[in-house]
Amino acid sequence: MEKKRTAYLTLMDPDDALRRWFAAMDACAAPRSEEEVALTAALHRVTSRPVAARRSSPAFHGAAMDGIAVRAEDTFSACPQRPLTLELGSTAHWINTGHPLPPHCNAVIMVEHVVTEADGRHVTIEKAAFPWQHVRKLGEDMVATEIILPPGTRIGAYELGALAAGGVLRVPVFTRPRVAIIPSGSEIVPLAQARDEDLQAGRCLPEFNSLIFSAMIAEAGGTADVRPIVPDDPQAIAAAIHAALDDGADLVLLNAGSSAGSRDFTAQVIQQEGTLLVHGISVMPGKPTVLGMVRSRPVIGAPGYPVSATIAVESFVLPLLARWQQHAPDCRERAQAIPCHALPSRPGMEERIRVKLGDVDGTLVAVPLPRGAGTVTSLSRADGIITIPRACEGIDAGSPVEVELLRPRHTLAQGLLAIGSHDNTLDLIDSFLRKDHAACRLTSAHVGSLGGLQALARHQCHLAGCHLLDSQSGVYNRQAIAQTLDEAVFLVHLVDREQGLMLPPGNPRGLTGIADLAREDIRFINRQRGSGTRVLLDYLLRQQGIAPARLNGYRDEEYTHMNVAAAVLSGRADAGLGVRSAAVALGLDFLPVGVEEYDLVIPQRLRQDERILALLEVIRSAEFRAAVDALGGYGAAHTGEVIWEYAGSRPEGAEERPDAPSAPAAAAREQHSADR
Amino acid sequence: MEKKRTAYLTLMDPDDALRRWFAAMDACAAPRSEEEVALTAALHRVTSRPVAARRSSPAFHGAAMDGIAVRAEDTFSACPQRPLTLELGSTAHWINTGHPLPPHCNAVIMVEHVVTEADGRHVTIEKAAFPWQHVRKLGEDMVATEIILPPGTRIGAYELGALAAGGVLRVPVFTRPRVAIIPSGSEIVPLAQARDEDLQAGRCLPEFNSLIFSAMIAEAGGTADVRPIVPDDPQAIAAAIHAALDDGADLVLLNAGSSAGSRDFTAQVIQQEGTLLVHGISVMPGKPTVLGMVRSRPVIGAPGYPVSATIAVESFVLPLLARWQQHAPDCRERAQAIPCHALPSRPGMEERIRVKLGDVDGTLVAVPLPRGAGTVTSLSRADGIITIPRACEGIDAGSPVEVELLRPRHTLAQGLLAIGSHDNTLDLIDSFLRKDHAACRLTSAHVGSLGGLQALARHQCHLAGCHLLDSQSGVYNRQAIAQTLDEAVFLVHLVDREQGLMLPPGNPRGLTGIADLAREDIRFINRQRGSGTRVLLDYLLRQQGIAPARLNGYRDEEYTHMNVAAAVLSGRADAGLGVRSAAVALGLDFLPVGVEEYDLVIPQRLRQDERILALLEVIRSAEFRAAVDALGGYGAAHTGEVIWEYAGSRPEGAEERPDAPSAPAAAAREQHSADR
Repeated sequence: MEKKRTAYLTLMDPDDALRRWFAAMDACAAPRSEEEVALTAALHRVTSRPVAARRSSPAFHGAAMDGIAVRAEDTFSACPQRPLTLELGSTAHWINTGHPLPPHCNAVIMVEHVVTEADGRHVTIEKAAFPWQHVRKLGEDMVATEIILPPGTRIGAYELGALAAGGVLRVPVFTRPRVAIIPSGSEIVPLAQARDEDLQAGRCLPEFNSLIFSAMIAEAGGTADVRPIVPDDPQAIAAAIHAALDDGADLVLLNAGSSAGSRDFTAQVIQQEGTLLVHGISVMPGKPTVLGMVRSRPVIGAPGYPVSATIAVESFVLPLLARWQQHAPDCRERAQAIPCHALPSRPGMEERIRVKLGDVDGTLVAVPLPRGAGTVTSLSRADGIITIPRACEGIDAGSPVEVELLRPRHTLAQGLLAIGSHDNTLDLIDSFLRKDHAACRLTSAHVGSLGGLQALARHQCHLAGCHLLDSQSGVYNRQAIAQTLDEAVFLVHLVDREQGLMLPPGNPRGLTGIADLAREDIRFINRQRGSGTRVLLDYLLRQQGIAPARLNGYRDEEYTHMNVAAAVLSGRADAGLGVRSAAVALGLDFLPVGVEEYDLVIPQRLRQDERILALLEVIRSAEFRAAVDALGGYGAAHTGEVIWEYAGSRPEGAEERPDAPSAPAAAAREQHSADR
Repeated sequence: MEKKRTAYLTLMDPDDALRRWFAAMDACAAPRSEEEVALTAALHRVTSRPVAARRSSPAFHGAAMDGIAVRAEDTFSACPQRPLTLELGSTAHWINTGHPLPPHCNAVIMVEHVVTEADGRHVTIEKAAFPWQHVRKLGEDMVATEIILPPGTRIGAYELGALAAGGVLRVPVFTRPRVAIIPSGSEIVPLAQARDEDLQAGRCLPEFNSLIFSAMIAEAGGTADVRPIVPDDPQAIAAAIHAALDDGADLVLLNAGSSAGSRDFTAQVIQQEGTLLVHGISVMPGKPTVLGMVRSRPVIGAPGYPVSATIAVESFVLPLLARWQQHAPDCRERAQAIPCHALPSRPGMEERIRVKLGDVDGTLVAVPLPRGAGTVTSLSRADGIITIPRACEGIDAGSPVEVELLRPRHTLAQGLLAIGSHDNTLDLIDSFLRKDHAACRLTSAHVGSLGGLQALARHQCHLAGCHLLDSQSGVYNRQAIAQTLDEAVFLVHLVDREQGLMLPPGNPRGLTGIADLAREDIRFINRQRGSGTRVLLDYLLRQQGIAPARLNGYRDEEYTHMNVAAAVLSGRADAGLGVRSAAVALGLDFLPVGVEEYDLVIPQRLRQDERILALLEVIRSAEFRAAVDALGGYGAAHTGEVIWEYAGSRPEGAEERPDAPSAPAAAAREQHSADR
């Protein structure tokens, strides 16, 4: 980077930005174009004008039941005491459901209530008919000329039926708005052409925002036209905008180059070729968004990071598509949630934080996902979005806050929320639950083992994944539970997890175990103090009688397994301690040195909860254990065993709770302890 | 109808029926087939297995900001008092967002916080960097081998992004379940071939259920194969089932012939060709539903009426498609609502009643739509569904009841609910509101003028359409309002509505006005006592000095404009009184004889409500009046005028309410009265 422009964005409130954009469009608006499509091709299209019934439905007074058609007034004398006989072909007429009533008839008597006389020419009834009984009357459903659908109606299955019944075989709909998507960036390559080695070396970035945008636009009733990638060059960008407009785009969406850096040309190009309306909105993620008009058509520059980019599209593209199709933009269901930890936010910026949600004892608990604008999984994993207003400095843990739901509320109620340490087998449990117990699922949020126990103590999750070694006793989890929880819980063993040395491919230094870490020629990279892996390292060193100070790099700390692996991969260190999956992910060698216990902590009060029962059924199945074995790096011999029951610590004088463990449970506890 | 079979259905609880069907399928289940599709074709498909990341994302430690890459530890001494100078190419490296960090760097300092020295080879900073500041770390978003999507995930825009970031270019998905739809019925013709004259004579019925089903199946991830129409013949039906199975159908959906009548063969054919599991469910509509298995594949017979048929499809086809794709069936949001009148129901039958919903002062009010199984518009017009359980005899007016929402709750909150007399111009208002005020809409429910005023008195609607003539004074609506409402309201004139004589086409009897109704050769058809039209007739007869008894047929009553029109069309009567639209709909002659006033009654407390303001803006627009004129039969000269203000009748000693009309308002009221 030779030279930096240090232009700053002028941040505008997103509502003001949208109003300004719409106003600019209204100033040069042509009416939206319409077309007529066959009814059979009208699904998901949007009506462009009121659609009236062409015929009445039903088109005649017809029988709603099989039976006899009569004139009700002729039957008024009939009663069980004085049955009435009618003459077929004169005062009574056999009729099938759906068939037209003979003239002068105005009621149908069900076949079950009709006795045919022996002569076959008369029938007897024991009950009077009232007028229009069991008759579908002409126009009962709709009358010709009546409006069936107002304009701006998205046509679904039911609407197709109503149009068909009204004899409407061609439907006036809005033409689908055409959105041209222009990916830009000199380092961007089409997704299918991105080679792993180039990606790993940072020589290119795969382009896939256009895939996300196209889907969003299609779901909003538009059509997306993904254009070729344009380099970071103002002339090329201007040419691409004009080409898209020449090809009939109703809207041009540029991505990226919307910020104020030395290679960000979107705003400048729009200003040159048309009118720049907005450069920068006071929303995070999404801040570097550009709005403008070129040749009387709207042009938007969306930021490059996927999360920011989707916010720009949701805030400015989808409302425009809705407006063009005269319907209200889709709004999401909202609910109250309690954040499981504080959400600080920068005043002056509206912030949108994606969260996982769990329904614990009827309360929605929100677990924030990483806020990074590039974290695509925060899009796919989120259950909801919390918006922190501009004026607000953040939200305290435990304060109720409104959340937009990305999944239906009842789906959330059917799920389990695990908070605690992360392990890949939690994702496996989720997959098995979905397969075998369709309505159930496991959402997991990762705040570390101790954070999970604390969330459990606050009733903010259903279970916690935990691997806390007591380095004195060498026993996992029990001491931490006793120190953290008042409530009675039980401990279910999930997996044994291999910890080992992550080494450069081929193990060039020839390490054979923990003892080699003390070698003078070895540079070690450590985990941060308090992490389970650091505790394990200290425990292993103590077992071998090695003083930590003897390790080169004992004080060099990283915060995750993956960071340790990356340090080894880049040559910064010769070895680090971590789980096998991190080594496998980066193609490193792995030398197992110990086994760690990863357990699930579950409150006794949920012991009979059907979701917990489903989870236990899953993890005790042979299929699950086989899948765990297939992951590599795990031991599943004792998966699903209840290895400890913790009675909880009640304050003095507190009432005995019905779910507190009884004497036999305590005995079982001892037994389980001995087992392990 | 020559001979009736009087077989009855054995009604089964729908949950039991579904369990029995699933159990039969499980007994002969093959695993669902899967396929791999390109990521670009994966939108809305459902993952068939856990999908793991193929690469880590990001693939390297990269800059999250433009600036300089540093090793954080090298900067710890920097502060405003003692700025630190770093050497470019050695301890500092210019870097652009997204580019990989040089080896040994672990932080980025934003360009805004960097001063370039005059020599161009050094930079100065005033603040230390902390490790990993402004760095997107390798695997921060996802780590290779990690599960991105569990099985049974419907792939949306966000999921596409996550898969792309994980380098997954081909996705394992379930093959779309194939549903063969076989329409049956000897009188059924394809929709496009149904001629108006045949429909009106009842010689054929158009087939369009397959259109509704196909859309429902497509939205549930299946593909529909609509097969040719089959006559009511057991052999033909059996052959059609086998042909569909031969063509690879996963499920066969027969429609109709599922009841127990003489021409209903579905159950019999399934029993002959396979296993009949269920014939009849205890749900209305939807009772005559058939479930069975033929050649180890599920076959369902759905009832012929569209509303029943969709309930059969929703209850048995969609859950099966969801089960095959391993995800929970879509469930609808639920809410509490208050029915505006009692909902009686037959014990022993679960009943599903479609309702319109309005949010009045925060309470959801449910207005039942017609329950007829053939009423397609009850599908397209419904906002929600109330289920009355088997054991229940119905729901009292005003008792809270759970409703499944067919539209989002917040959309309902943005709408206006009108209850009262029906008029087509209400639909026109709705269309204009949607066009000009996208978020607003007008839902109207039709219970007659007096019913509307009563609903207003109970705070169950926002406004009421009303045309109640006081036959003594000849003034519309005011007396009825004063008799019914305690609350202050204002009366807005909507339209003058032409009433007239509906006559056979060409007016063969040469009628010229009301006086001719007393002619001896004229058979009249009347409306029921209490209807506005009957009141108008009496008023007109009194004006002309004609005794009602002189009219032939004065005591022959019909309940709707359309029934009167149908009586005239069928030749049962020579004339009836009604609105022009009914005459137009059936192609009758129309002889105007009077003008009726149709007004809107709106509570004063809503006078500044923005939805009411939007409505008033609409009806006062020139475009709206032009559209009303175009309908024919209306006068719109005074549309939108506030013609009366009613102060309400408060109980003695009640507090003056702030929104009660003041003296000037009362004066204006007098003025308006004089105007009219």
